[in-house]
Amino acid sequence: MDVLFLFRIREHQEDMLRSEFPEVNFLFDRKTDDPAVETSEVIVTYGTDVDENVLVRAKNLKWIMVASAGMEQMPLGRIAEMGIRVTNVRGIHKTPMAETMLAHILSYRKKLKDVYEQQERSEWNQKIRGTELLGSKAMILGPGAIGGEVGRLLQAFGVRTYGCNRSGRQAEYMDEMVSFGGLAEALPEMDTVISVLPSTSETKGLLSREHFGAMKESALFLNFGRGDLYEEKVLIEALESGRPAAAVLDVFETEPLPADSPLWNMENVTVSPHISSHSGKYVERALEIFMPNLRAYLEGQADKMQNRVDPERGY
Amino acid sequence: MDVLFLFRIREHQEDMLRSEFPEVNFLFDRKTDDPAVETSEVIVTYGTDVDENVLVRAKNLKWIMVASAGMEQMPLGRIAEMGIRVTNVRGIHKTPMAETMLAHILSYRKKLKDVYEQQERSEWNQKIRGTELLGSKAMILGPGAIGGEVGRLLQAFGVRTYGCNRSGRQAEYMDEMVSFGGLAEALPEMDTVISVLPSTSETKGLLSREHFGAMKESALFLNFGRGDLYEEKVLIEALESGRPAAAVLDVFETEPLPADSPLWNMENVTVSPHISSHSGKYVERALEIFMPNLRAYLEGQADKMQNRVDPERGY
Repeated sequence: MDVLFLFRIREHQEDMLRSEFPEVNFLFDRKTDDPAVETSEVIVTYGTDVDENVLVRAKNLKWIMVASAGMEQMPLGRIAEMGIRVTNVRGIHKTPMAETMLAHILSYRKKLKDVYEQQERSEWNQKIRGTELLGSKAMILGPGAIGGEVGRLLQAFGVRTYGCNRSGRQAEYMDEMVSFGGLAEALPEMDTVISVLPSTSETKGLLSREHFGAMKESALFLNFGRGDLYEEKVLIEALESGRPAAAVLDVFETEPLPADSPLWNMENVTVSPHISSHSGKYVERALEIFMPNLRAYLEGQADKMQNRVDPERGY
Repeated sequence: MDVLFLFRIREHQEDMLRSEFPEVNFLFDRKTDDPAVETSEVIVTYGTDVDENVLVRAKNLKWIMVASAGMEQMPLGRIAEMGIRVTNVRGIHKTPMAETMLAHILSYRKKLKDVYEQQERSEWNQKIRGTELLGSKAMILGPGAIGGEVGRLLQAFGVRTYGCNRSGRQAEYMDEMVSFGGLAEALPEMDTVISVLPSTSETKGLLSREHFGAMKESALFLNFGRGDLYEEKVLIEALESGRPAAAVLDVFETEPLPADSPLWNMENVTVSPHISSHSGKYVERALEIFMPNLRAYLEGQADKMQNRVDPERGY
């Protein structure tokens, strides 16, 4: 059986797969013009290169493993028609993203920028006054895999977590839940407001001037979801008027962030160039999801595969 | 009964004490030359001002509440002779210190200094490569109240914790233990090495050139204990030679750190001006320890008081 990788993995990872699955013929680091597209039963891809032309040639294809969380660029309708199974690596970003968000929250609370700047001036000044996470409250917009991991870590610091989703239904690692409709009412209590929401018709423009105006003067706002959660000029006005106190932004309306954006120079803004999901362990984790699935597939237990995607719904 | 405070607390805290203990005559924000020293049964102090002269005049004194963790400056022998009870606020620093250490560890791993510097240049550069805490190993020298709290938080991030104390006896929130003697052998595995050790005859100069040389090239070293854990020039040479990779220092041989110290200008060093234990909640926490103790004292149940100190041993 042929399993085709449309990207490169490390040699020791190739060796590991070959030794774990001696019955499989792995074809690594190929392009979509490779003849093996026609013979392969499984294709492993980052998801951007499997188009209609590839599908037409993939006569033996039964399963596409997408080594990314988003599926927007795949011809899902055609895949559904062809009855091809799809799995992805949902949740793979949760560790690097949650660790990075905690890094920014703690750095802000402990004023590490000030510590670094004082050191630049060789200045011994003990007047830096940090604040504590313990006993504070955090709102997490989008309490899914990533939001839940942030919630779990915040709870370890003694932070009370409030999840916010469309319906207000319970989510893991959230002490309380609110719906999108109840957000404005809950915001005045929050010390930290985090969004990891994807871009959908319901989240686009979800945060308005009124939402930012309802935040505490001491609140820290983080957006690690998508840049169209609000109009950027509304956020900028809110930050200029002092509610929220500061923002850490990993996503923007336009990326790369244009050189003339006022965000670059705002004292109370941290610009992170959409890097929070980066991790040296990405492929390793993708393989950790792929291998048990391949085992299940080979044993005829495809119903036991993890991270299955319904191609008709796209998630 | 007179209870004398040798420091100032906030008005709402004074009100809270008066309303909780109407039977007590509180005297707030006094100096040691106050006549109330002679009448007070309880003195609440930061510990630096109660000397032999005060004790001679304190004819009614039965209990000293020291609102600090260290007792080095108190005439403990005389206090022991006089049979005066002593309590302190042991553990009060654990939250601000542990949160600050996590802030520095995460900021280093996620390269936040680079993020801040890129922003200074309005530079959108996604090449910043953070590393993860999950699956890494951390050595904690001094796994007491503060070290245990760091261990607890690191464990929440999926870090394996190794405690190191004199005997190697088990300590809370440590996955494994090593003794001071076994330290050099364990260091080559550690991604993070943290000291929160106090200064004692056994910890002075504990870390040698050999210990630093045994650390990983990628290791981060943090000292939030005392600056005499090593000769500072030995640490500087170790950092110049690349083991450990970097250091975050909150304590130094000489404080304030002299203006001509090379540490100020080292790229791989963060100088924190001995502020990690600072917290806006210090007095609030001290009162949280004091109030149940005062209740127990008034009810004649002094044996139920928390954080009692044996003045003969000093801890």
